[in-house]
Amino acid sequence: KVIWTLLVTILGYASSLPVGDDSICTAEELAKYSIIFTGKWSQTAFPKQYPLYRPPAQWSSMLGVTHSSDYSMWKKNEYASNGVRDFAEKGEAWVLMKEIEEAGEKIQSVHGIFSAPAISSGTGQTSTELEVHSRHPLVSFVVRIVPSPDWFVGIDSLNLCEGDHWMEEVSVDLFPYDAGTDSGFTFSSPNFATIPQDTVTEITCSSPSHPANSFYYPRLKILPPIAQVTMVKLKKNQLGLPAPYLDIPAKSNEIIDSVS
Amino acid sequence: KVIWTLLVTILGYASSLPVGDDSICTAEELAKYSIIFTGKWSQTAFPKQYPLYRPPAQWSSMLGVTHSSDYSMWKKNEYASNGVRDFAEKGEAWVLMKEIEEAGEKIQSVHGIFSAPAISSGTGQTSTELEVHSRHPLVSFVVRIVPSPDWFVGIDSLNLCEGDHWMEEVSVDLFPYDAGTDSGFTFSSPNFATIPQDTVTEITCSSPSHPANSFYYPRLKILPPIAQVTMVKLKKNQLGLPAPYLDIPAKSNEIIDSVS
Repeated sequence: KVIWTLLVTILGYASSLPVGDDSICTAEELAKYSIIFTGKWSQTAFPKQYPLYRPPAQWSSMLGVTHSSDYSMWKKNEYASNGVRDFAEKGEAWVLMKEIEEAGEKIQSVHGIFSAPAISSGTGQTSTELEVHSRHPLVSFVVRIVPSPDWFVGIDSLNLCEGDHWMEEVSVDLFPYDAGTDSGFTFSSPNFATIPQDTVTEITCSSPSHPANSFYYPRLKILPPIAQVTMVKLKKNQLGLPAPYLDIPAKSNEIIDSVS
Repeated sequence: KVIWTLLVTILGYASSLPVGDDSICTAEELAKYSIIFTGKWSQTAFPKQYPLYRPPAQWSSMLGVTHSSDYSMWKKNEYASNGVRDFAEKGEAWVLMKEIEEAGEKIQSVHGIFSAPAISSGTGQTSTELEVHSRHPLVSFVVRIVPSPDWFVGIDSLNLCEGDHWMEEVSVDLFPYDAGTDSGFTFSSPNFATIPQDTVTEITCSSPSHPANSFYYPRLKILPPIAQVTMVKLKKNQLGLPAPYLDIPAKSNEIIDSVS
């Protein structure tokens, strides 16, 4: 039996590129995927102000949704919803879950919601299962960076359908975003609401351009990915559980470089 | 069309009662449920040593599994697995997820895994969807009490199948358990491994019988429930999203009583 695997690696900024039209998906109606999130937020890769206690560097629960292009969970350069603000600032998922529910009821744009457990360190993995539908082939999720003012990583409207078939496997490097709702500059900044609210922006090694910023590394061209997500298509009735071969978090893309 | 709702309220200690034989389930093969977890850990109900900061009282992600009687996630008066220990002590889900995966692969005793986002306060709600199978009609889950040494709430092997049909709705009051792996007495005790490991025990207002214990309330007969979980059967294709009528956390069962 020939098993072929299509491995597509999309760079993190792909989430800001135009999304493919999801109306042309003619693949089988339903597909299940295992989604594995790997934190790469190590002190080696991100030495500056790395949070060691109260709380140490860690990741919130993952909250995600499978949907059509009529719904958007979050989008670069647009304003975050109240739900995304609550989640990015406090890890509180309830308002965002209600927003997703409303989008599901009012405009039938949501197929399902999914969640994965939090990770209690900066490096580590978590996993869950998600289901897409040919009319709802897009995946979005958010994971809060803890501690942080309102920073998160995530995916916006990744299309798992490629014409007449579902992707076998896709991996995406993730980079930090600022929800635009709290003006803190560093991981442990006290709360300080941004008024008026700013849009969602990507945080890079040079932006915000201020030496106090926790991700400001003037000697780097780009930040190493702070996390990675992999989605693997499951066979029917296969459990969407942690994949054994992902036991050891990947070390690639980490830089060993003393900075700023 | 007549919609009838069967509301079954099971007291928290039901999780320690003998589990119904799951081999006699003749209900439809698959059923989906919405599961809503409500934290009732308020300073009013639990005034003693209520954690206000670093971190304040809150709940971890929920990690759960639907399974047959061949698998057990945790059981009162038995030893916690390494996975349950990691989860109860640190909220780290990975080892427990691997244990569940292995049980699913080796003995076909697991139907699915589910997770719900963490709650960033002692009172609040979270929700997700789960699927049971007539050969895997049991639900188990754990949610870590944060902060705490190794305390959690959960359900052990609740059977959602009643002979030839699936329950429409079930609510269970939840009470704290000690995983038996860390000897801390109070919410914010430093880590202190219990060697040899003890079994999982229920924490009551009188046990452990020591005034320093965070749940020791000698003037109470029983603790108020610290949380509640409700599972509601979903219609086919219905989204398992937060139920609007559960917007306001229930206030019942909370006691206003100055204690110890």
